[in-house]
Amino acid sequence: MRAQIISQVVKIFTLGGISTVLSFILAPLVLKFLLKNKMYKQIRQDQNAPIYIQLHASKHEGKGITPTMGGIIFWLITFFMAFTILILSFIFGGIWSFLNFVTREQTILILGSMMLAALIGMIDDIFNIYRIGPKGGGLPMKVRVVLHTLIASIGAWWFFVKLEWDILYVPFVGNVHLGLWYIPFFIFIIVGTAFAMNEADGLDGLAGGVSFMALIPYIAIAFLLGRFDLAALLAVVMGGVLAFLWYNFHPAKFFMGDTGSMTLGVLFGFLAMYTNTALFLPLFLFIPFIEALSVIIQMFSKKLFKRKVFLSTPIHHTFEAIGWQETTVTMRFWLIQGIAMIFGLLIYLLSVLKL
Amino acid sequence: MRAQIISQVVKIFTLGGISTVLSFILAPLVLKFLLKNKMYKQIRQDQNAPIYIQLHASKHEGKGITPTMGGIIFWLITFFMAFTILILSFIFGGIWSFLNFVTREQTILILGSMMLAALIGMIDDIFNIYRIGPKGGGLPMKVRVVLHTLIASIGAWWFFVKLEWDILYVPFVGNVHLGLWYIPFFIFIIVGTAFAMNEADGLDGLAGGVSFMALIPYIAIAFLLGRFDLAALLAVVMGGVLAFLWYNFHPAKFFMGDTGSMTLGVLFGFLAMYTNTALFLPLFLFIPFIEALSVIIQMFSKKLFKRKVFLSTPIHHTFEAIGWQETTVTMRFWLIQGIAMIFGLLIYLLSVLKL
Repeated sequence: MRAQIISQVVKIFTLGGISTVLSFILAPLVLKFLLKNKMYKQIRQDQNAPIYIQLHASKHEGKGITPTMGGIIFWLITFFMAFTILILSFIFGGIWSFLNFVTREQTILILGSMMLAALIGMIDDIFNIYRIGPKGGGLPMKVRVVLHTLIASIGAWWFFVKLEWDILYVPFVGNVHLGLWYIPFFIFIIVGTAFAMNEADGLDGLAGGVSFMALIPYIAIAFLLGRFDLAALLAVVMGGVLAFLWYNFHPAKFFMGDTGSMTLGVLFGFLAMYTNTALFLPLFLFIPFIEALSVIIQMFSKKLFKRKVFLSTPIHHTFEAIGWQETTVTMRFWLIQGIAMIFGLLIYLLSVLKL
Repeated sequence: MRAQIISQVVKIFTLGGISTVLSFILAPLVLKFLLKNKMYKQIRQDQNAPIYIQLHASKHEGKGITPTMGGIIFWLITFFMAFTILILSFIFGGIWSFLNFVTREQTILILGSMMLAALIGMIDDIFNIYRIGPKGGGLPMKVRVVLHTLIASIGAWWFFVKLEWDILYVPFVGNVHLGLWYIPFFIFIIVGTAFAMNEADGLDGLAGGVSFMALIPYIAIAFLLGRFDLAALLAVVMGGVLAFLWYNFHPAKFFMGDTGSMTLGVLFGFLAMYTNTALFLPLFLFIPFIEALSVIIQMFSKKLFKRKVFLSTPIHHTFEAIGWQETTVTMRFWLIQGIAMIFGLLIYLLSVLKL
């Protein structure tokens, strides 16, 4: 048992280490490619968001020339390592079989979903860059929701039909059977996390930093549940996010783009369903959760009462509007994210593992 | 057992929560007090550090009017809560005895050492503010080292003579008996961490952020060792650091001052000795460790070879000198600190707890 745990820790750290090194080699190349091809993000010109435009006209002048799609780094490294090691394990076995983390039980579904999300996100980014589509470019919200619902449906089908899962863990209560409600719930979680991560991706280093942090409890949970290959996959993603973040800290050299935020959002959604921790998501992804919540509250309030609740949403713009510097908002949000995560992990340890 | 663990978790979180709330009330009051009394930090005018002066002349112009001694917040809240709850527990018992975390076995020595360090640091800060002493103000280095050696000696005596400890845990090896060498080693660790934390305190949010992070593994370790009162004390300190940090993030409203960095440094030094994790310090306090190391290497190189190894030390100034923005240095240092801490905690779990 102890030997197995140590060998799995070695595997996870080796993969995470290789991923980090490769990602730091890849990141400047991706940056050069994005700059060369002028993959610049178009700042939204939405007449429904006057405060946002005002803020970004004055402060973020320079942002017009920051490339997007930096998120390519973490999904490219993940898929590259997954497939390279898988193929090497078929050919040579031995050490490569030990390092392989692509398994039917633990990681294939998540890898496949991430791949679809990365692709959809990339199409969205490219449409935005070349100003294809309504409102200055990008896939319309409706199209994106439909596509994510599609990805989520595949997952829901796999879990409900193939794995015959319909349980949701309620902290300090236990597993509750959702029956057929499991399917809409599953879809809601995946689409919700993708949306939330997208909304959180609005300040330098914010979504990347929050994702980096949230990977830590999930690696711990995957490990504690004995899903070592899943933990290894997350370590590989973490290495990629680390290198991305290094260049994404203020002043950002690139943004992650939808191809980054969608991939991470879908990843966390699947992770929550896979580890049966959906009700912990508001804590593990606290910042994306409140960002998304602020957008939804604002939208309903505008529709129903014709007035705004927040100065500007996602909520980080409200804090910018009241005079906090961008880096101050980011740092304080990280701090809050850290506290929420500690709470989440603690409740998990006490409730699920009955420590 | 499980009931006891849950009750201790409740205690730690209650105390941490109260400390956080009180600290957020205290912080603006301290800020107002420091501003009103013009407790501004004097930027060093050391002719041996030309690059430092150049950097700070151009970029940090505004820093001349940032007050120092913000570190008062976290030690004041710690001593206030410790003594208030102790006294209430004597008078009323009951819930107050449950919440009390001042015990002879676990926390009194650390609290006393922190108090001395806070006092020495405050004298140093006040000397600096009023330009008392050589080189523009502050206690001379020699005086500070002597005073810290004094604090450390009390601790060393307590551990060696009263507790009859002379052991040092070496990861994957076990406890090694140091005999009389334990005393100089103890002093070296305390003086070293105080010095290291002081050197790390040079960028907005850096020393505070690193300390906040490093408190997490130490709370976990204290808890795992069953030293619940120590864990509770650390949670109280953490609440104070949290509120301090909120205002210390770039652009800082105040600095922690020596009264902050010395208190934290001495705290971590005693923690390391108390939990027998001295050899983990370079990982748990990775950033202070490399900051101190850079200063020492630079000093020796200047003395012995008449040339500099780094552009400017502590090392964070070198990164500023090569063009990184202050917040970029801070954020990247936090990231590195986080990775080092994960390594440290993992080695601890595998080696000490034999998980």
